[in-house]
Amino acid sequence: MNPDILRERENATFNTDLLTNILDGDQEKTRRRREIESLVISDPDFQQEDPNFLSRSERYDAAVRKSAQMILKLREYGISDPEEIYFYKSCVHRGRAEPLDLHLGMFLPTLLNQATPEQQETFFMPAWNLDIIGTYAQTEMGHGTFIRGLETTATYDPATQEFVMNSPTISSIKWWPGGLGKTSNHAVVLAQLHTQGTCHGLHAFIVPIRSMSTHIPLPGVTVGDIGPKFGFDEVDNGYLKLDNVRIPRENMLMKYAKVEADGTYHKPPSSKLTYGTMVFIRSMIVGESARALSKACTIAIRYSAVRHQSELRPGEPEPQILDYQTQQYKLFPLLATAYAFHFVGQYMRSTYHRITGDINQGDFSELPELHATSAGLKAFTTWVANAGIEVCRMACGGHGYSHASSLPGIYVTFTPTCTYEGENTVMMLQTARYLMKSYKQAMSGQQLSGMVSYLNEAQQQRQMQAQPVSSSRLATTATAAAASVHLSDLASLVEAYKLRAAKLVEVAAKSLQGELQKSLSQEDAWNNSSIDLVRASDAHCHYVVVKLFVAKLEEVGEAAVHAALSTLAQLYALHGLAQHSGDFLQAGLLTVPQLSSVSQRIKSLLAEVRTNAVALVDAFDYRDEILNSSLGRYDGNVYEHMFEWARKSPLNRTEVHPSYHKYLKPLQSKL
Amino acid sequence: MNPDILRERENATFNTDLLTNILDGDQEKTRRRREIESLVISDPDFQQEDPNFLSRSERYDAAVRKSAQMILKLREYGISDPEEIYFYKSCVHRGRAEPLDLHLGMFLPTLLNQATPEQQETFFMPAWNLDIIGTYAQTEMGHGTFIRGLETTATYDPATQEFVMNSPTISSIKWWPGGLGKTSNHAVVLAQLHTQGTCHGLHAFIVPIRSMSTHIPLPGVTVGDIGPKFGFDEVDNGYLKLDNVRIPRENMLMKYAKVEADGTYHKPPSSKLTYGTMVFIRSMIVGESARALSKACTIAIRYSAVRHQSELRPGEPEPQILDYQTQQYKLFPLLATAYAFHFVGQYMRSTYHRITGDINQGDFSELPELHATSAGLKAFTTWVANAGIEVCRMACGGHGYSHASSLPGIYVTFTPTCTYEGENTVMMLQTARYLMKSYKQAMSGQQLSGMVSYLNEAQQQRQMQAQPVSSSRLATTATAAAASVHLSDLASLVEAYKLRAAKLVEVAAKSLQGELQKSLSQEDAWNNSSIDLVRASDAHCHYVVVKLFVAKLEEVGEAAVHAALSTLAQLYALHGLAQHSGDFLQAGLLTVPQLSSVSQRIKSLLAEVRTNAVALVDAFDYRDEILNSSLGRYDGNVYEHMFEWARKSPLNRTEVHPSYHKYLKPLQSKL
Repeated sequence: MNPDILRERENATFNTDLLTNILDGDQEKTRRRREIESLVISDPDFQQEDPNFLSRSERYDAAVRKSAQMILKLREYGISDPEEIYFYKSCVHRGRAEPLDLHLGMFLPTLLNQATPEQQETFFMPAWNLDIIGTYAQTEMGHGTFIRGLETTATYDPATQEFVMNSPTISSIKWWPGGLGKTSNHAVVLAQLHTQGTCHGLHAFIVPIRSMSTHIPLPGVTVGDIGPKFGFDEVDNGYLKLDNVRIPRENMLMKYAKVEADGTYHKPPSSKLTYGTMVFIRSMIVGESARALSKACTIAIRYSAVRHQSELRPGEPEPQILDYQTQQYKLFPLLATAYAFHFVGQYMRSTYHRITGDINQGDFSELPELHATSAGLKAFTTWVANAGIEVCRMACGGHGYSHASSLPGIYVTFTPTCTYEGENTVMMLQTARYLMKSYKQAMSGQQLSGMVSYLNEAQQQRQMQAQPVSSSRLATTATAAAASVHLSDLASLVEAYKLRAAKLVEVAAKSLQGELQKSLSQEDAWNNSSIDLVRASDAHCHYVVVKLFVAKLEEVGEAAVHAALSTLAQLYALHGLAQHSGDFLQAGLLTVPQLSSVSQRIKSLLAEVRTNAVALVDAFDYRDEILNSSLGRYDGNVYEHMFEWARKSPLNRTEVHPSYHKYLKPLQSKL
Repeated sequence: MNPDILRERENATFNTDLLTNILDGDQEKTRRRREIESLVISDPDFQQEDPNFLSRSERYDAAVRKSAQMILKLREYGISDPEEIYFYKSCVHRGRAEPLDLHLGMFLPTLLNQATPEQQETFFMPAWNLDIIGTYAQTEMGHGTFIRGLETTATYDPATQEFVMNSPTISSIKWWPGGLGKTSNHAVVLAQLHTQGTCHGLHAFIVPIRSMSTHIPLPGVTVGDIGPKFGFDEVDNGYLKLDNVRIPRENMLMKYAKVEADGTYHKPPSSKLTYGTMVFIRSMIVGESARALSKACTIAIRYSAVRHQSELRPGEPEPQILDYQTQQYKLFPLLATAYAFHFVGQYMRSTYHRITGDINQGDFSELPELHATSAGLKAFTTWVANAGIEVCRMACGGHGYSHASSLPGIYVTFTPTCTYEGENTVMMLQTARYLMKSYKQAMSGQQLSGMVSYLNEAQQQRQMQAQPVSSSRLATTATAAAASVHLSDLASLVEAYKLRAAKLVEVAAKSLQGELQKSLSQEDAWNNSSIDLVRASDAHCHYVVVKLFVAKLEEVGEAAVHAALSTLAQLYALHGLAQHSGDFLQAGLLTVPQLSSVSQRIKSLLAEVRTNAVALVDAFDYRDEILNSSLGRYDGNVYEHMFEWARKSPLNRTEVHPSYHKYLKPLQSKL
């Protein structure tokens, strides 16, 4: 064990395990997660050469091998709880996506949710036993988040009782679905349904694409891999072009919508149920933001504890780089953010489960807000984590660029979350739409509930200020209120974030009104205000995150853990306040003289976090086998392992690379 | 040609070629650059499979092949002007680093600058003819930017008149030098010189590392590739461990420092000349920031002109995504930034050349400031461009993640600039040191020259305000001054950036003073103020960039081009002002009511840039062969080429991947 990192752990003020339990949920969950991880890590079937040393084809090959093993072992061990499957799977693939992801995560669930009992009879068991390997083909080359624009067609032919599937244009080629390129022999294809001369919009069809016996693409099917990407080397994201591919009528998923034998169409009963799934997926992505950022923080902070560089004081030994204020200022706010996002993810999951109960009893009241807020939180957390991982990487200096650090891999695995499951800007605008609607309701005196209820308070304040008699007194009160924000009082900070959000929602609403007064259409006014709308959503989400972080503290009983988390919560709130000081000044929530106190307070919080920094990343509890990072090793023996890793690099398999004999040696004689 | 992109070009208000000439320097330079590019692009010897489809070993192999060809052809064509070599080289390697970079860019120049005439006799021609292939081995596993900490030793042995070279610790292993792993047979090694029992600090030694005949590593030399990285796949960044490797006394580069046969040491005459080289390299990096960001903008803006998505107005066709205000808000400020950085790079290069003339006449007066500012500008521009490239990538939705877009490649090729040639935070602190010194001088009434002279003005203002009688009048004046900032007047915006910089320099200086008053040492006070110091440098650099952009406009005669650039300069300045509104509010340069005018003004500028956006990226004049991007093609035929590219992907070489027969087929029978 490196003595620096040992000393860091000795100096920690709290018991790391207690915090790990909070992150996992409770002590038993920690125990079970560790048990499952050990099961995978000790399993010789899951050993693999470092994927960084392999070609893409080899990485795909290794991933298929491990996924096949995984399916067998999950059944052997009887692991069926979704959370436990998640632990097992992410341990097998070290957090990377894999070729069967869409089969397990989209194809099977789609069958369960949208197939009729007869269709389940036909398709489910073969899919469960991997005779049918499926994917979910929605995105096309020309359309992503805006799914109404999808162009693939399914035209019903009553003569043969078949659907004729077509990709009518180049932009209609299915593009991106994971596992589509090489792995799957079936796909759920989203297509515009045409029957009896009418288009009825998007519906889902089960389309066989490769032979069940030879795996060769079927006639009319052009399928393949979309080529190398920024990461996701293990996954065969694919393209699919359909030319008059005929499938039986029974292959349309008909639990809700139906096409009869003669072509008569029955539309689905409208349903808010899909909201629930989206909330669930987005809460998973918020969790991914937390995990990816906390991995990056673990690596950067451990490395900063053992890396010595430059001099702080002449004549003294080179300090740990974690002692530089600039390094702390890069890493500790991100550490605080990782904790904040963990708690937001926990909140969203538990709210989803609670609301699922309500929904089953027919109560949808909380769903619209959660749906709207979760869109914004998905965008907010993925953007922040995305940029934060790169800050962590660059905070490791040159070594952060090496795949030995694992940081590039964490980044490229994570960054697609900003785009998939709803492009982030579109998500922010969805939240904005809800905020604008709520603002209008508040303005008209309607009482709001949930996270947006602050819009009522803001409206009440405005009404009070509008009373002419007391206006000057209230102006004074407003100033007093601003001055009364206590920088070391978390409740007061939550309040400041709330009022900032209220202010920016108002700014956006007024921008919309202003554009409408220029007699623009509703749509053009919306577009011309969209910068303000995104900003309002961002402020709303920021408020929600601060609020949930502070709320979480109330659940933490253990004093030492509470103190450490409270420091992080303050740092998170104050750092955001400093980054967005213009907003807080504009809203009158902060005064110019307070700015230097904010700055001072942040510096003391950095010094407080410094003591526990290593313990706080230890609490995330990532095993070395999962981090796979020379810089982030638990024992801190960084350089030895970088050297060991480098020597295994494929270019070192021969002392002299063939290019020397082919090009350099002959050149020497020519010059 | 895609009709959308054609229409964009038809609507442009200026002649693209005129702007290209400004970017290149003049019409003749554009002609010559294009001539050289055509020479390379039409040359069958430089054709290559898309590197994204190759393994790292194949990419290295292809790069060595092309570099060898390049050396022959540069001589054949008699291309020797450094700028023309640069065009040729970056066209051959499509902007990527290559294995001979350090031989050409560091090893040969080091010989020219630091070798004695006798040493040049011995080493230069063999190196010129690539019998000697060299690299520059400075960085070690344990030390990067802080080079005084390097541990490699060169101990003089007068008995044999040799230096004994050693890597005494694991952290002393040379790590990262390009071309070291596999390509080079020699290295300039930076090592601590020990002679007659004394250490004389870092000196440079020419160390043979591989046999000139077999290319096998020499005894005592452990050398190899450091393994895969985030990009730089063509380069064999290497490690080098030396165990009692003996080299003749004559292999120490002795133009300045000397060791006599008996071991007597003569130190070099101190010199500021190395400053010049650093300024040159940093000005090149600022140019790289401009180029990388302008490539990313070219791709994202062209793609946004042909991509249609979602709906702005019900019932109308899907709009070009470039019509979304949020998309404009992502891309156009970056476009403006790319132009700003181009002009800053031009300024730095021309200043360097001018000052080089002065230096040759013994006038070093301008050098310290340029040296200090260039450190900060290197950091400022690389950080901004680094984040900006990723914004461009994500603005392309899913397709930005594909290597077909080229955006991931641009990012990974560029991002190391944030770390190499001086880690960015360290660079910012260097600039801060100069700013603090200048601030002190200004406070003591000394007249400053150059970019920091505003510190005198700020000091004079403070003195005036300090006169008690007129203080309230002056407070009023200050408010009036703030209100008088004209948001559409560039000179006024430059002034605002200047005063913001002055304010933040003052804040940092006061933080330093405050820490010193807590009776901290100078060094601890510096560390405890470093957040403020970096912020001050950042504001100073931002001012310099705005100032230089605006100054450049004065050189542009053609009215239509001037108008287009002027719009960009305003957008650049106002966007920065909005992003840092807290600073401007704090400094009293902006009032809260002005904030909404800033926002309005930005929106109208976005609409102005919209008209010329495609023409403004066309003016960067990147040929399709150089961009190598399906999304950024000049003809806008994006989807056709993505499909064509994908079909060539290595995973598509067989219809059925071997893993199907190995793992999936057997699994089906087991389940």
